[in-house]
Amino acid sequence: VPGARPIVFLTDFGEGDFYAGILRAVAASSAPASPLIDLSHAIDPHDVNQASFVLALSLEYLPPDAVVVAVVDPGVGGARRGLIAGAAGRTIVAPDNGLLSDVLATTPAVHILALDESAVGRATGAVIRGATFHGRDVFAPVAAAIARGIAPATLASEAGGVVMLRDVPSVSIEPGTPESPTRITGTGRLIDRFGNILSDIPRSLVERTFGANPCRVVVNRTDAGPLRATYGDGAPGQLLVLFNSWDRVEVAVREGRAADRFPGLDARRIRIELNGE
Amino acid sequence: VPGARPIVFLTDFGEGDFYAGILRAVAASSAPASPLIDLSHAIDPHDVNQASFVLALSLEYLPPDAVVVAVVDPGVGGARRGLIAGAAGRTIVAPDNGLLSDVLATTPAVHILALDESAVGRATGAVIRGATFHGRDVFAPVAAAIARGIAPATLASEAGGVVMLRDVPSVSIEPGTPESPTRITGTGRLIDRFGNILSDIPRSLVERTFGANPCRVVVNRTDAGPLRATYGDGAPGQLLVLFNSWDRVEVAVREGRAADRFPGLDARRIRIELNGE
Amino acid sequence: VPGARPIVFLTDFGEGDFYAGILRAVAASSAPASPLIDLSHAIDPHDVNQASFVLALSLEYLPPDAVVVAVVDPGVGGARRGLIAGAAGRTIVAPDNGLLSDVLATTPAVHILALDESAVGRATGAVIRGATFHGRDVFAPVAAAIARGIAPATLASEAGGVVMLRDVPSVSIEPGTPESPTRITGTGRLIDRFGNILSDIPRSLVERTFGANPCRVVVNRTDAGPLRATYGDGAPGQLLVLFNSWDRVEVAVREGRAADRFPGLDARRIRIELNGE
Repeated sequence: VPGARPIVFLTDFGEGDFYAGILRAVAASSAPASPLIDLSHAIDPHDVNQASFVLALSLEYLPPDAVVVAVVDPGVGGARRGLIAGAAGRTIVAPDNGLLSDVLATTPAVHILALDESAVGRATGAVIRGATFHGRDVFAPVAAAIARGIAPATLASEAGGVVMLRDVPSVSIEPGTPESPTRITGTGRLIDRFGNILSDIPRSLVERTFGANPCRVVVNRTDAGPLRATYGDGAPGQLLVLFNSWDRVEVAVREGRAADRFPGLDARRIRIELNGE
Repeated sequence: VPGARPIVFLTDFGEGDFYAGILRAVAASSAPASPLIDLSHAIDPHDVNQASFVLALSLEYLPPDAVVVAVVDPGVGGARRGLIAGAAGRTIVAPDNGLLSDVLATTPAVHILALDESAVGRATGAVIRGATFHGRDVFAPVAAAIARGIAPATLASEAGGVVMLRDVPSVSIEPGTPESPTRITGTGRLIDRFGNILSDIPRSLVERTFGANPCRVVVNRTDAGPLRATYGDGAPGQLLVLFNSWDRVEVAVREGRAADRFPGLDARRIRIELNGE
Repeated sequence: VPGARPIVFLTDFGEGDFYAGILRAVAASSAPASPLIDLSHAIDPHDVNQASFVLALSLEYLPPDAVVVAVVDPGVGGARRGLIAGAAGRTIVAPDNGLLSDVLATTPAVHILALDESAVGRATGAVIRGATFHGRDVFAPVAAAIARGIAPATLASEAGGVVMLRDVPSVSIEPGTPESPTRITGTGRLIDRFGNILSDIPRSLVERTFGANPCRVVVNRTDAGPLRATYGDGAPGQLLVLFNSWDRVEVAVREGRAADRFPGLDARRIRIELNGE
């Protein structure tokens, strides 16, 4: 149905204010036939890196014609541009602040346009009031216009090659030498409500690197034994590392919270090493 | 409209992660015409008993053709089956871990099938990755398939009589003797954000048992006086017990939090006795 | 499309219980074609004043044909009436407890009807069980009936002039004298998750009063300098006052939380003075 592309929200607005609700209302006003899907409003405030990771993990699960509004925007009111990206069939509307980094690192053939604010104003009737709520005044109206069928090219022009990137993914490989084994290193990217530490180290890379050979895992300086198959493979309370349901390496504790073993550290400060034998 | 059965979510995922959002996205991808309704993602983590109670209280208020995805699943990755239950016109997709106990105790003619994972894979294209997110990989795709019109019997077969039950409802009756009055006993099942303690003792049972005769209530060892008609019937700060809007017995404090009178106890540890006179 | 007016929710139910979900389910049961939009369930419990402010700020952003269910209702079970208000094209269903005060103060030609409970019962089949959940039993069914196309006048009758009002907006003006400058005074109305203090002092009033002349701001007894254009105009850590994206005066701290400068005070206890020079 024309006008019915679903609109997906990813923000750091929380649900403790009415700001996420205003995004929903603005999108519904402008694209009344579009289903609205809250992916998450729980990104840590201003944590663009975390939003980038969540967006990349989620992309394949979104409706194939989804228009995503991704607003984690500490630079609102400054000079940063807005972007429209086409990735894996979906369209993403987001600030140019690194939020697309993981999608760019993991998705082939992403096409990026830069918003033209005067074209946006003409097409959406958007009026920016104050300098502080581009989610309401720009990103949601743009997403709704695209969901209604307006071509991104009428709102934006080629972004050129200079889109902002963050240092993601976190993964690096050191090839083995006679003296030292092959090593894959990465960091945590997200701590979930169960205290699990999700990394962006992909299962495919680990399997390609080590094949059927075992590897041992070290998390910061703690030995976490071999890679496990399931949460049940560890003793209760034991730190264990496995491939999770996102096909990424994850640090967990059976019947416990892995993050509590690294108190005060955010995910990026938790380093995960996989060492061949 | 075929394909438009609404999909209702009941989980312990919280809104602090993106996991509830992924369920919504998966359902929307597979059943794009279905309205999505979040009943609650705030079940206490792994508290199957609480989810069972909330599901039973809510059932009659759900759209009459709703498909419910109920995922509170501490045993994910283990041997527990998935179920499809038909109850009061709605269809419920849930793990076989006791989540249906209250519905079975309060709803006539519940019909239960056990998911056949290979049939599920064929019908939904579901792929289980890792051992940890059956909500995303099984329960939501199954619910979406049913919402689209696929018959449960193509995904599941007769469950037999051995569905897991929990010890719910919590209610028992001691008939009166010359020495002691008739007594109904139950426990709390849920503490809400106002600190009210909701039990599963039904108004109909109390009225049938005591009729027009008064009864006195004791909560753990505290005398809570007679059953009241409304919250306003107690003095401010006073523990009071009444029939709530779910037609169940509830413990409250006017302008206060009843749960704070029983510090450190979860709902099931709070015992409510109604004694005839 | 008849039957497709969107339904918008504004409550103090939080997302930690299933009560907001029940409102959604009841609305979806009765108006299955209506999109459901959660504006906010995060109003502070029983804070009618805050809900009134949020509703007025949000009104113009809601779909032009929205039906709003606004339930912050500390007097549930008492004698207060229910209301149906027509304002700026939208329809609002709310208790008669002051929740409409800011809408009445800022929107022309609001038309208000008082719910007739027996008419509601006939039209919606609503049954009030217990004395405590009119959101579920009255307000959501009424909103859904209106969203389906039932005329408000079949559910309600003229409210007369005696609708409850709160002392909002908070704004007053003292004209200047030779001895003292012109002064606009207001209070905070809402503290958001970033610690910003939103007032209801409108930009238009300030500009009309002071024109191009500067004014200085005092927040409780703290000098906050002149009115600023953007958050970036203050030094980090400095209290600053500006027009926000709602065209209202707001108190902020660059890279900090303004509310933390006024510990223990709720928004209404924070007084904002704009003094001409």
